[in-house]
Amino acid sequence: MRLKKVGEFPLIDIISKQTAASHPSVIKGIGDDAAVIAEGRDKCLLVTTDTLREEIHFKTSFTTPFLLGKKSLSVNLSDIAAMGGTPFCYFVSLSVPESLSLDFVKELYRGMHRKAKEFNTVLLGGDTVSSLKDIVISITLLGRAKKKSVVYRHRAKKGDLIYVTGYPGESALGLLMLKKDPNFFKRKSAVKKHLDPSPRIALGKALAEKKLANSMIDISDGLIADLEHITRQSKKGAHIYLSQIPLSNSYKKECLDFSKDMYHPALFGGEDYELLFTSEAKNKTKITNLSKRSGIPITCIGKITDPSEEIAILGNSNKKIKKGNIGFRHF
Amino acid sequence: MRLKKVGEFPLIDIISKQTAASHPSVIKGIGDDAAVIAEGRDKCLLVTTDTLREEIHFKTSFTTPFLLGKKSLSVNLSDIAAMGGTPFCYFVSLSVPESLSLDFVKELYRGMHRKAKEFNTVLLGGDTVSSLKDIVISITLLGRAKKKSVVYRHRAKKGDLIYVTGYPGESALGLLMLKKDPNFFKRKSAVKKHLDPSPRIALGKALAEKKLANSMIDISDGLIADLEHITRQSKKGAHIYLSQIPLSNSYKKECLDFSKDMYHPALFGGEDYELLFTSEAKNKTKITNLSKRSGIPITCIGKITDPSEEIAILGNSNKKIKKGNIGFRHF
Repeated sequence: MRLKKVGEFPLIDIISKQTAASHPSVIKGIGDDAAVIAEGRDKCLLVTTDTLREEIHFKTSFTTPFLLGKKSLSVNLSDIAAMGGTPFCYFVSLSVPESLSLDFVKELYRGMHRKAKEFNTVLLGGDTVSSLKDIVISITLLGRAKKKSVVYRHRAKKGDLIYVTGYPGESALGLLMLKKDPNFFKRKSAVKKHLDPSPRIALGKALAEKKLANSMIDISDGLIADLEHITRQSKKGAHIYLSQIPLSNSYKKECLDFSKDMYHPALFGGEDYELLFTSEAKNKTKITNLSKRSGIPITCIGKITDPSEEIAILGNSNKKIKKGNIGFRHF
Repeated sequence: MRLKKVGEFPLIDIISKQTAASHPSVIKGIGDDAAVIAEGRDKCLLVTTDTLREEIHFKTSFTTPFLLGKKSLSVNLSDIAAMGGTPFCYFVSLSVPESLSLDFVKELYRGMHRKAKEFNTVLLGGDTVSSLKDIVISITLLGRAKKKSVVYRHRAKKGDLIYVTGYPGESALGLLMLKKDPNFFKRKSAVKKHLDPSPRIALGKALAEKKLANSMIDISDGLIADLEHITRQSKKGAHIYLSQIPLSNSYKKECLDFSKDMYHPALFGGEDYELLFTSEAKNKTKITNLSKRSGIPITCIGKITDPSEEIAILGNSNKKIKKGNIGFRHF
């Protein structure tokens, strides 16, 4: 069977089963935003890896090497944010054609370094190999957290409210704009969100340390697709209220010029790098206060239900809406 | 300037300078076989990353996906061996064309898993993305060591004897055979060495814990090129005695059918994944005993000298020999 027919998530399941093994210091292996490894009695190490590949994840005609460097690190930082951790060092495996300019590579690393400095994170190694044609940027990022405060995907509880940070869908809208005309739309906020996302490190850490999240994930595959990771791993279902999905003013103004549906990019578009988390209803005021203090919108968009209900998207009068295809898949 | 003209090692220097930053828990960043990070008072974490790219580092017509999986992990294990550490977990970033078969990917992971089990090492995560055409395997491997026993490249001392494990050059000879006829030569021991190297984990750890190595590196770029990393970072020179370079019987028998010079593959060929280390002269008997106990040849091939002498290769009557081009370079 060709990989195209297998699909990304079934492939991960196959590999996980095939390589299953245990090690005394491993707390969580494959299946969350980062692996969790015990480090002494109270602390743990978080490790995540993400790869960006030219023509699949980015086009050099849509971005600059500096922004590409920033984003390469941001997508990894976002995984550490989703575990409630603090990043501290990273490793870069870079494949580039030997015809590429030194300036491109320097700008790429300048971008990574700029983003890294924001979070007191340092480059500690890597590997650079020549490629036949395209650019592949693979980063492994290490972070740390207190063992007790790490937030996983699999601990959502029935009755938990579901929250999202920021405004989902802007990144997907930005990509639609870039596909239409990269030069004309380059100053749009949605395009900026797509090319230079802001990983929610401080917010993820605050949610974790204040025990305000039972489960958490970052939105890389799309809000619904990532919520599915939470519900499947927690063996729960979810209700999402369409009217509560937060849409930014600029998104509302421009979305329908690029998408036939106002909600499709917000629910099914990927690469928002916002946090999606679930929290007990009693925490609502604390979460509102955290949102105010951090200046980052945090919106309740639904609740965790029985597993039998799967994910239901509820529109007017709480009527179920058909989901259609879900999220971005690599294969 | 194009990368082709920059060269791999100058590029690493440029990136290191550009991204220079410190972090309290970092003991060693870019510039050794692995990064070294403090973990509590006495221990440290070792992290290494290596990438294998189709057509650059391997050809699918020369190997099998199972052997490719084994080798992908072995080249990383070898880096942990060169620091004197114990590996414990790894992360795989895999780029593969979606037309590739599921069986290929399963065999690849079966190979990694087989090699990992040998060293009680577990797969904890990764990322799989589709590629346009070729296969890129990027692995990040984590290991641990006692802080005091880690062996670096930069601590060779004047008068240290230089040792190498195993028989250098076999891997390069194996590659020459594969290039001539992959089917005809597939059972040759040099080909096996090239396709399925044995990382020297136990030996590296023993040398480190018994304090028998002042400096150490694994031979991936070639014996002389890797010795240069030691001498440059230790600010020393070296004498290498050609007559002492250990050559296996099969290598001696077959080398001249593939190379015009008996010593060129041994000194300048890469990918041996043997250990090259320096040790005070007083340790000679202990090293001989370690070699006997482990069953792995360890041969004294030279000594560390003043920096002014750089690396001199000495032939009959200790006459200096011209080096010519040195080692394998990626760009």
